Amino acid sequence: MARRVVDAAADRSVCVVASAMGDTTDELLGLAAEVTRVPPPRELDMLLTAGERISIALLSMAIMDLGRSAISFTASQAGIVTDAAHGKARIVDVRSSRVLQALEEGKVAIVAGFQGVSSELEPTTLGRGGSDTTAVALAAALGAEACEIYTDVEGVFTADPRLVPGARKLDRLSYEEMLELAASGAKVLALRSVEYARNHGLPLHVRSSFAEDEGTWIGKEAEQMDQAIVSGIAHDAAQAKVTILAVPDQPGVAARIFRPLADEGANIDMIVQNVSAEGRTDVSFTLPEEDLALVEPALERVARDVGGSGVTLDADVAKISLVGAGMKSDPGVAADMFDALAEAGINIEIISTSSIRISCVVRASQVERAVHVLHDRFGLSEDALTLEAHPSGQDRADGRG
Amino acid sequence: MARRVVDAAADRSVCVVASAMGDTTDELLGLAAEVTRVPPPRELDMLLTAGERISIALLSMAIMDLGRSAISFTASQAGIVTDAAHGKARIVDVRSSRVLQALEEGKVAIVAGFQGVSSELEPTTLGRGGSDTTAVALAAALGAEACEIYTDVEGVFTADPRLVPGARKLDRLSYEEMLELAASGAKVLALRSVEYARNHGLPLHVRSSFAEDEGTWIGKEAEQMDQAIVSGIAHDAAQAKVTILAVPDQPGVAARIFRPLADEGANIDMIVQNVSAEGRTDVSFTLPEEDLALVEPALERVARDVGGSGVTLDADVAKISLVGAGMKSDPGVAADMFDALAEAGINIEIISTSSIRISCVVRASQVERAVHVLHDRFGLSEDALTLEAHPSGQDRADGRG
Repeated sequence: MARRVVDAAADRSVCVVASAMGDTTDELLGLAAEVTRVPPPRELDMLLTAGERISIALLSMAIMDLGRSAISFTASQAGIVTDAAHGKARIVDVRSSRVLQALEEGKVAIVAGFQGVSSELEPTTLGRGGSDTTAVALAAALGAEACEIYTDVEGVFTADPRLVPGARKLDRLSYEEMLELAASGAKVLALRSVEYARNHGLPLHVRSSFAEDEGTWIGKEAEQMDQAIVSGIAHDAAQAKVTILAVPDQPGVAARIFRPLADEGANIDMIVQNVSAEGRTDVSFTLPEEDLALVEPALERVARDVGGSGVTLDADVAKISLVGAGMKSDPGVAADMFDALAEAGINIEIISTSSIRISCVVRASQVERAVHVLHDRFGLSEDALTLEAHPSGQDRADGRG
Repeated sequence: MARRVVDAAADRSVCVVASAMGDTTDELLGLAAEVTRVPPPRELDMLLTAGERISIALLSMAIMDLGRSAISFTASQAGIVTDAAHGKARIVDVRSSRVLQALEEGKVAIVAGFQGVSSELEPTTLGRGGSDTTAVALAAALGAEACEIYTDVEGVFTADPRLVPGARKLDRLSYEEMLELAASGAKVLALRSVEYARNHGLPLHVRSSFAEDEGTWIGKEAEQMDQAIVSGIAHDAAQAKVTILAVPDQPGVAARIFRPLADEGANIDMIVQNVSAEGRTDVSFTLPEEDLALVEPALERVARDVGGSGVTLDADVAKISLVGAGMKSDPGVAADMFDALAEAGINIEIISTSSIRISCVVRASQVERAVHVLHDRFGLSEDALTLEAHPSGQDRADGRG
């Protein structure tokens, strides 16, 4: 990694954001588990921030060992100011004067990712994907040309390449497409970092830590370019479905259901309300499986409060999503998707759409097959490139023009 | 450890200074060695300070797990301000308002030892024994009643108990005695922390991490108390001796020898100059064995500059020291010491004394025997307590009062 940084820094200023090495974070969590069952969030942040402190110092040493001057910065030194929400802090300001000065002095700046400092000078961490967020925020503050995200895959793929061996690396995606993919379960980039990049018009380059090849560029939607109808498929097997039964179909019911659940901190995703029968309706929604424990204690009470007859929980569901900027101008994609899933005998339980995304909730046991079926149907494979470039009678082919 | 802290904090405010756990520092040094042969000092400090960050967070969690409120502080948060000498920084200020506030709120404050922050907000470390120094400096700044130093031995002993099984734990020592013992090789307390405690009149209590018993109290010299002639014996096997041969016996020669060596950062200890013969003299001095590499490149040049005929190096020497406040009023101790060593066939190569200490340089291979011989001769053993309390004809008995 040091060698790559030195090469990259040969003809330009480079600021590197490093996360903790390999299993460091898990090891630290293991130590905490030895002394307490529920680590206090502030002390957990104090503990975990040791991880990047180690990695930035070692990377800086390794770079200097190659003869290039470098200096490491903790989040506090690099001015990554966050709110005080330990474990899931949000960056509120980037005061990067020390980093900028180091770059102006010709040094490679190595900044600790994932961590921040609150205005009360307390250590904080940014939560999952935090290092990406640090990198994007810092790149925007420094006025960088681009932010490269090094990861263990070669870029963003048409589907999870571990699941679909024929999945194809995408050369380019719009912020909006990447946002939909990330929100739909693609783990390659954290949602928050993509939002931040979009808001600052900062080009992102997702590429491999282990290969020199170009990865996937993420930027503004290119008006002139041919827009793929379906750019990629994301899936998320860690979803759960909750249904509140026989709720009186009255104004204000939805708010009385979802306000208390949101207050518990649950990320409610898709919401559907069945057609009313005899003045009563079933209200279903999905949420991350890990959030089920947050809402479970409140659900019976919520159902009673709104006059529902009961609650069902279902952790065996998954979500599969098609994302593509070209979808906006092609109303046939949804029908194609439903058709393909039906042909494969996969039942759709909930549907949700945005202008560039269609998501379906299916049985968790069927989601991997659903990914394969849709990847084939929409011609996303490496082998299907020719087919895609010369559409052969599929009903969405015109839209690709 | 958390349980002990909670017990200690039952009826008073407690601030704990923690060093890194077990082998953490060695592990971090090992990681650095994997990426570079000579780690840059600033980055090494960035790396090593991760160690206490981990230990303070875990200790704080463990204390909270026992139901006591606690909060951890890095050196930066605790206001341990140092100079910028990475790896061997000196504390220049303690701005402990955050620690004080935490104590006033009834929390146990856990502060990272060994580390500091420079006025440029850079991470620093204090070098060997740094956590003791942090504890003493913080205790003085907070106006603490006393500073307890928890260690792997039960206190300060009449000699190294690993070497002399009959060595006796001392209940009380004056700052001056402890300083002489520390300077003479006793490793139980770092010299700098004792100096700091003396300068602030802060009582120190050296005790075991593993037992509840009282250890050794170190404080002002008690005028009324009976002063032991010999309180303890320290030895240091990691010494080296250098002799510059046939130096012209002229004014200014000593400065021309020792100024350049001091500039190399070597800690020159004992210096002796033989009686002049034919206008020339041999100049010998001792220094820590690890400092030999610092001065070696300069020695030949220094010898030539002062007109000496050559240099001899000898890493096989050791220093043995007797320390005791009562020595001031007993001129017979030195003679007793030389006599005992002579009887045991141990040759003395260099002698150096202060008002409460006598040190001799001997062959390294003989130093352990020398410790035993002197420990017996001065009746320091547990078994010798009766003898010591009722002196029986030894010539220094009167001095004991």
